[in-house]
Amino acid sequence: MGQTASTDKARPVSMKDVRIQDDFWNYYIDLVRDVVVPYQWEAINDRVEGAERSGAVSNFKIAAGLAEGEFYGFVFQDTDVAKWLEAVAYLLVSKRDAALEQVADEMIDIIGKAQQPNGYLNTYFTIKEPEGKWTNLTECHELYTAGHMIEAGVAYYKATGKRKLLDIVSRAADNIAEVFGDGPGQIAGYDGHQEIELALVKLYEATGERRYLELSRYFIDKRGQQPSFFVEEAERRGWTTHWRKNKIHIDHAYFQAHQPVREQEAAAGHAVRVVYMLAGMADVARETGDETLLEACRRLWDNIANKQMYVTGGIGSMAQGEAFSFDYDLPNDTIYSETCAAIGLIFFAHRMLQLEPNSRYADVMERALYNTVLGGMSRDGRHFFYVNPLEVTPGVCEGRNKNFNHVKPVRQEWFGCACCPPNIARLLASLGEYVYSVKGDTVYAHLYIGGEAELAVGGAKLRLKQEAGVPWEGKARFEVSLAQPSSFALALRVPDWAAGAEVLVNGAAYPIDGRVRDGYAVIDREWADGDVAELALEMPVMRVRSHPLVKGNASKVALQRGPLVYCVEEADNGPQLQQLMLPLDAKLEVGFDAELAGGLKLITAEALRLELPQWGSQLYRTDSGASLKPAVATFIPYYAWANRGKGEMAVWVKERV
Amino acid sequence: MGQTASTDKARPVSMKDVRIQDDFWNYYIDLVRDVVVPYQWEAINDRVEGAERSGAVSNFKIAAGLAEGEFYGFVFQDTDVAKWLEAVAYLLVSKRDAALEQVADEMIDIIGKAQQPNGYLNTYFTIKEPEGKWTNLTECHELYTAGHMIEAGVAYYKATGKRKLLDIVSRAADNIAEVFGDGPGQIAGYDGHQEIELALVKLYEATGERRYLELSRYFIDKRGQQPSFFVEEAERRGWTTHWRKNKIHIDHAYFQAHQPVREQEAAAGHAVRVVYMLAGMADVARETGDETLLEACRRLWDNIANKQMYVTGGIGSMAQGEAFSFDYDLPNDTIYSETCAAIGLIFFAHRMLQLEPNSRYADVMERALYNTVLGGMSRDGRHFFYVNPLEVTPGVCEGRNKNFNHVKPVRQEWFGCACCPPNIARLLASLGEYVYSVKGDTVYAHLYIGGEAELAVGGAKLRLKQEAGVPWEGKARFEVSLAQPSSFALALRVPDWAAGAEVLVNGAAYPIDGRVRDGYAVIDREWADGDVAELALEMPVMRVRSHPLVKGNASKVALQRGPLVYCVEEADNGPQLQQLMLPLDAKLEVGFDAELAGGLKLITAEALRLELPQWGSQLYRTDSGASLKPAVATFIPYYAWANRGKGEMAVWVKERV
Repeated sequence: MGQTASTDKARPVSMKDVRIQDDFWNYYIDLVRDVVVPYQWEAINDRVEGAERSGAVSNFKIAAGLAEGEFYGFVFQDTDVAKWLEAVAYLLVSKRDAALEQVADEMIDIIGKAQQPNGYLNTYFTIKEPEGKWTNLTECHELYTAGHMIEAGVAYYKATGKRKLLDIVSRAADNIAEVFGDGPGQIAGYDGHQEIELALVKLYEATGERRYLELSRYFIDKRGQQPSFFVEEAERRGWTTHWRKNKIHIDHAYFQAHQPVREQEAAAGHAVRVVYMLAGMADVARETGDETLLEACRRLWDNIANKQMYVTGGIGSMAQGEAFSFDYDLPNDTIYSETCAAIGLIFFAHRMLQLEPNSRYADVMERALYNTVLGGMSRDGRHFFYVNPLEVTPGVCEGRNKNFNHVKPVRQEWFGCACCPPNIARLLASLGEYVYSVKGDTVYAHLYIGGEAELAVGGAKLRLKQEAGVPWEGKARFEVSLAQPSSFALALRVPDWAAGAEVLVNGAAYPIDGRVRDGYAVIDREWADGDVAELALEMPVMRVRSHPLVKGNASKVALQRGPLVYCVEEADNGPQLQQLMLPLDAKLEVGFDAELAGGLKLITAEALRLELPQWGSQLYRTDSGASLKPAVATFIPYYAWANRGKGEMAVWVKERV
Repeated sequence: MGQTASTDKARPVSMKDVRIQDDFWNYYIDLVRDVVVPYQWEAINDRVEGAERSGAVSNFKIAAGLAEGEFYGFVFQDTDVAKWLEAVAYLLVSKRDAALEQVADEMIDIIGKAQQPNGYLNTYFTIKEPEGKWTNLTECHELYTAGHMIEAGVAYYKATGKRKLLDIVSRAADNIAEVFGDGPGQIAGYDGHQEIELALVKLYEATGERRYLELSRYFIDKRGQQPSFFVEEAERRGWTTHWRKNKIHIDHAYFQAHQPVREQEAAAGHAVRVVYMLAGMADVARETGDETLLEACRRLWDNIANKQMYVTGGIGSMAQGEAFSFDYDLPNDTIYSETCAAIGLIFFAHRMLQLEPNSRYADVMERALYNTVLGGMSRDGRHFFYVNPLEVTPGVCEGRNKNFNHVKPVRQEWFGCACCPPNIARLLASLGEYVYSVKGDTVYAHLYIGGEAELAVGGAKLRLKQEAGVPWEGKARFEVSLAQPSSFALALRVPDWAAGAEVLVNGAAYPIDGRVRDGYAVIDREWADGDVAELALEMPVMRVRSHPLVKGNASKVALQRGPLVYCVEEADNGPQLQQLMLPLDAKLEVGFDAELAGGLKLITAEALRLELPQWGSQLYRTDSGASLKPAVATFIPYYAWANRGKGEMAVWVKERV
């Protein structure tokens, strides 16, 4: 497999250098700082009344010898602390906060004390099952848990310059490097839940220690090889399982271990694991120039984006295994679409953007961000969706428990398995990192989010001030500040939702015909201090249709405006949303609701409602007419659903063709 | 509660007195005789290659001391032998068969030897868990199993006059009467799975022993009383469970034990149990004149027929618990609709017909019979559906196992839990019993199935010869043979599917305006030998629509002609049936297919197919038009589906309003 230096890859402009100042996003980022992160600190300290017990912090205290007690929670409970610390680190980047930093430092001290002399760091195995270390990688998330702590260590170091957690996780990684490998006495295996792979590349970048990159690559290369590591370790263990049942059942596809990763043709199994794995693969491909790995990333990207993704950017159509199912199988009601999976898809997309800037990656990143991720959290920052359905009937969720017990019609307070809330927090707190990349002499603007960025391109250092109207208006304005004129290209993404795009430079039209490259309008010129580029994107209400093989969406339509997918809710449209129908020529008007979810643009449609007059008590009738009566349908952005109590909701609405 | 004598109730004309001779039904009844019953005998003797092991007969041999071995199968495995014997009995009624009778007699000898000295009869508890007798009525089906053997004993006695099995089951029932009751040392409880109730009433009728009726009533009255018997026996047992888990979880509604039966407002829980219970309740109401019980039967009938029944007469919309879910919740794909539940609904309907002849009961009986029951068995009599979906996509059944593992796209050979195949056999073998009732001086014809019946009405004995065109033609002809002229009424059901009905008597119009009573056209006159009544029913193709609250059927239509519900199959219409659409004014033509399932009438429709031209690889498009192209859709009777390999199927088709 070919390996080349990676000098031609793009690099994201670090969040350290991007200060978000945006009418739409400020609220959510402030919410993460003011509510989500403090609330989650309370939650992982078991101080939120009515929420499920976490145990995450107390586990560390017990492992550190600072408290007495039993381990509580999942085998991967440590990751709630890690993700919280990672989010804190990102918050500290954009705003130092001595009090918060002190709380984090104290937590890090505890973590340090919980670490074993050989570098091992995992409270479950330290407290509860010391003899079980590294015996059940299939199920016990040991490397996954280590990976999250590594991400936290790197983030905290980059944010504060403090090495303590970085050193802790480096020692943990060194321990892992001793334990795993093809050498004598080593474990020639990998984790059931990917995460260590991308984390080790971050650690490599932060420390410059190439052995971490090599270890990441080792885990990726090993995955799915025959004979199966999972079977081997099960044999060594006597086929015990960490869970209730007596004997482990290994579904290799669930773990993406059914084939070597380079041979996998379609995304299969647990959705979060798939996209975490792909993020790690993209990282290694970037850092090593491994083209076969990049090719696998592209192939699985295409499979996900073209055959297995909801219009909201959600992935995972099946509750069983929280998993991908098969091509074009996208049920809207029994859906999984875990918030974490959408976040993982963003991680993957972001890395692909660095490998090969192309708007198709940024389009999906934006779609998942504005719809599933944002919809995963309530406006109060204290309620979350784990599962993000595209169609809900509360009575069905409650009445048909087996198929629907994972689907909640309203956001929940905190989960025993609380992966999603801290994942939202760390993504939003680091959102600055997703806005720009620089590759050679080109600055790519992937997202239209206002703020200021400091960056270096083509030898020049410059400040780029963005003002953006997205998601409500298709406008973005970029003002350049730089010491002396400099030639570089500003590449502005033309989103898949833009019906048309125009660029002005210093107020004059800048024709982009022939200048759109891989989905970006490239303004390649000499820039002077104070130069302004303006992008105008046509943002009509669009009727979205699904591929004909998506059975459940046949003759249905969804509305989208800009990056926002819309939905109908019972609160606006009454119950029985299945009776709504949108004619092909329905007039669609954009309005404004100042109250809902902090104010938003809604869409009203001249719709129809199916009428079956004077029905009576019969269940079936052979003598009834069916007719359509005019009805106004109100659509709100999907992210704002479920903020007005329990009710029906649907993204896909019948279309009268 | 009021009790009156039951002299005013109708009685079915016994199958002993009805000889079916019908172009449509002969095939199925012969199939039961020639294939199903012999095949099932092989199956319960574990002699069918490739079929799941049964163990049913060998369990009896082991319990009888005639063989060595372990018990095999479900705790209710005995019922497969019982239902087989019951079917044999019905076959012997219509045609003596010495060889078959000898096989049955030998089986009965074995059963006799397996019975304990005190009358106890159950191979599971005799062989495997002798100390566990009567300790877990909640789960272990002990009275259910006894009930099936009682039904067999009664049937075999009525068919052959042989008392041996009747005596065996009488002793078993006497043992039960000793064990159960409110007296000291007795168990004041009832079975988790109803069946004993209706069986005891049959035993009462066969033996004249009123104590069996009283015992039946005891079980019905006791059910759902507080404190919960299931909780009491669980406490006595230490909360063990018969199944895998460590501790029993009791969902009282699953067992219809959440309320006293007279207070239940809606059908809830395991569907087969509901309808077996209701059949027993109707029996006891009939025999005791208990109006409160009858009222409960009516109420639950209305709930099922008007809010929880599929258009095929299937019931049970939920795989979890094989259960009813809630009003208007009738998903077509994740459906349960167990064949046995449809058969139980027929049992219940048949009993309600005797309590109060009304076509609404017979309409449902006919609907379940011609669609779900018939569809539950293949034309070769060797393959069966347990679950009868109204919409199938094979790839979905296979790819999304959790929600669909109960739905099979093709009929299966034999089930480990083989309740449905022998249930079909015993129903079809006794079909004659369902055709007529006599009440006072009226003969009711419920079903249009050709044949001859001997009956007594209003003092006269007569022979009634029916020739019927149903289900293909809306015609029935009745010829009366009797010794001397006699006055009585012949009440001919006007089915809910008849667009119009006309009666001729001896070739002359017999106006029925004002003569239709409870859905029956009553021909009340003096009849002479050779008199002929003819019924002509308009049988157009009908477009059926669902109650507006049935979410999944909104803007969908099903086709029905006569009692037959139709469906579209991939074999005729290609895949992607979701793209088919039927315009309101679609021309529907009835044709004939001589090959499929022994010949049937099909329907072709000038339909439309949704087209999304030049789609390409994208999953979602905002620039696509949607249009409709003319397409011929072919509908076949639902009962004949899945006879041409694995493919998509749908009963409900989109309607273009």
